Amino acid sequence: RSMSTAARQKLRIGLIPADGIGKEVIPAAKAAIIALGSDIPKPEFLDLMAGWETFTRYGVALPEETIHALRSDCDCALFGSVSSPSKKVVGYSSPIVALRKELDLYANIRPVVSVAPQAGQQPDVDLVVVRENTECLYVKQEILETGANGKEARATRLITERASRRIGQMAFDIAASRPRKLLTIIHKSNVLSVTDGLFRETVRAVPSLPEVGGIYDGVTINEQLVDSAVYRLFREPQVFDVMVAPNLYGDILSDAAAALVGSLGLIPSVNAGDDFIMGEPVHGSAPDIAGQGIANPLASIRSAALMLRHLGYTKGADRLDVAVDQVIREGQTLTPDLKGTSTTSEVLDAVLRLL
Amino acid sequence: RSMSTAARQKLRIGLIPADGIGKEVIPAAKAAIIALGSDIPKPEFLDLMAGWETFTRYGVALPEETIHALRSDCDCALFGSVSSPSKKVVGYSSPIVALRKELDLYANIRPVVSVAPQAGQQPDVDLVVVRENTECLYVKQEILETGANGKEARATRLITERASRRIGQMAFDIAASRPRKLLTIIHKSNVLSVTDGLFRETVRAVPSLPEVGGIYDGVTINEQLVDSAVYRLFREPQVFDVMVAPNLYGDILSDAAAALVGSLGLIPSVNAGDDFIMGEPVHGSAPDIAGQGIANPLASIRSAALMLRHLGYTKGADRLDVAVDQVIREGQTLTPDLKGTSTTSEVLDAVLRLL
Ligand SMILES: CC(C)[C@H](C(=O)O)[C@@H](O)C(=O)O
Ligand SMILES: CC(C)[C@H](C(=O)O)[C@@H](O)C(=O)O
Repeated sequence: RSMSTAARQKLRIGLIPADGIGKEVIPAAKAAIIALGSDIPKPEFLDLMAGWETFTRYGVALPEETIHALRSDCDCALFGSVSSPSKKVVGYSSPIVALRKELDLYANIRPVVSVAPQAGQQPDVDLVVVRENTECLYVKQEILETGANGKEARATRLITERASRRIGQMAFDIAASRPRKLLTIIHKSNVLSVTDGLFRETVRAVPSLPEVGGIYDGVTINEQLVDSAVYRLFREPQVFDVMVAPNLYGDILSDAAAALVGSLGLIPSVNAGDDFIMGEPVHGSAPDIAGQGIANPLASIRSAALMLRHLGYTKGADRLDVAVDQVIREGQTLTPDLKGTSTTSEVLDAVLRLL
Repeated sequence: RSMSTAARQKLRIGLIPADGIGKEVIPAAKAAIIALGSDIPKPEFLDLMAGWETFTRYGVALPEETIHALRSDCDCALFGSVSSPSKKVVGYSSPIVALRKELDLYANIRPVVSVAPQAGQQPDVDLVVVRENTECLYVKQEILETGANGKEARATRLITERASRRIGQMAFDIAASRPRKLLTIIHKSNVLSVTDGLFRETVRAVPSLPEVGGIYDGVTINEQLVDSAVYRLFREPQVFDVMVAPNLYGDILSDAAAALVGSLGLIPSVNAGDDFIMGEPVHGSAPDIAGQGIANPLASIRSAALMLRHLGYTKGADRLDVAVDQVIREGQTLTPDLKGTSTTSEVLDAVLRLL
């Protein structure tokens, strides 16, 4: 599914730091990409706007210009993190959720791996959450009515065969590429027999699609109810290799998995579609530490690596990952989320020195 | 909200072991209740049917007779656990979900406390998940359509002001009764601004309801997005005291919390309404170990204690809890889920000896 990289002279990367620590970690990822030199095409960066701050200033959280620039002028993008208003604000809607849909980035791929586990951390976590990224409750079809007993709100949870099939295929692709070749389908079909039933059956049926022609023969398929999956994640995370999940379960599962390996500040993701790829750290905008220069840049640098790997720039991606792993293993230059005392720029410098 | 117990000569307890290990742990809870002797009214037990096995035999998972007997002939009940078919089966629907709704047991109260934590377990967990028990995606309004792109399934997520208010009140009651008096509202209103927005606002507004008249003044209110809540649960569970959540988040959160303290086999719950109370271990039917006599009966015995406490039989409830805690602390007689080698009946005997 990677785009052809043959003829590329330049790599045009949209940067959308958005809110909070997004504005500290995306510049760090940018610096790390620049440091790769000739291992990737010459990067060109476009600064793009989105987020809560953009909304408060311009009345729109995801400006048309940003979408247009991503579509027309970018080969890929890096997104930071968004803040949310603490109350419902008319007209505001999460720009990251919107972007995933606008660009049809249907897969959110979140690898969680333990590197140099410390006391209290799980030593053998090596899994990938493959999260469906366009539907489930994230379609945001909600209505509010007032009846005899007061207000009643309803949201629609949409699960389609089409979206389940393509996320299933993506998950099988990833599982097939890994040593253990183990795919666990996450659902709650004991309650949601129709929607999660469709998800489960559709993913299960992927290996027998005529067009995939037996290439997933070596993949073992398991399944697990979402509540039990979170339980087992804590107790025996080594049983999981690739987990494929509808949108909301994937959101929760990836935070759960992140907790096992020390910090959300380490967990990267890409939002992947057939035509575009956008890296994004899994952490949020962290208003409590924003502006202090102590945000962990490693999730963003790893997200850049994932993005580059997806585009076919394996060497550049490997270099970033090796450097990040080395910094974690050395344990000398870590931000406070990892119980260190270093700043964002000190951690970045440590990575740059190793590149 | 406890029922009047003054005039009671007998305590009529419906027993619904249902499937799998439910049939092993509910009899253990029964034995423990009997052993309380005169600390509770003389118990009378009614054996009632429900579950997957009932469905395969009689074509119905929750017989009318069971509902009728609970309504007419029981003061309270204990429910075991249900198995689910591995594929959608026409006409089958989870009897526990149905019972909660039929009896309007609108609150699922799940205390999770660490007793004698072992290596790798969180030492300071002492929290209660207060889960809304009648709506959210559990209304099971699902439809399946076939469109141009294949099948499309939709489920309705219902959040009402009425249900949010009463679960909120229950949660405030519980928080107000605890030393830390801390209530955390769990939601995902950055995505579900209407449904989770309604839940959040309604729960927040409970202390200012005229009818509650300031009794919650000492309770501190926090809130946390569900994904972050699972993350923090793993990382710093001590920040939580009472967590109130819509149905599905509560389901996932209580399994997550259970993982922190060693085993789902320890976690009790009650399904509570204004007129009825039903104890239920949080674990499932555990088909992998069913019939081997090694299921952990402690969650069921603790569920019996919660049920008795709710009915006002504090002394009986305390005795059960003290005995269970003692068995866990001694660590000599534990089932395999707690890395012991004892059987269900050996653990039960250990509890009975301490009563
Ligand atoms: C910010 C929020 C809308 C988002 C989500 O729920 O997808 C975040 O939690 C994530 O995991 O990327
Ligand atoms: C068996 C299932 C329907 C149930 C639920 O989801 O409520 C269970 O997981 C629980 O937590 O009681």
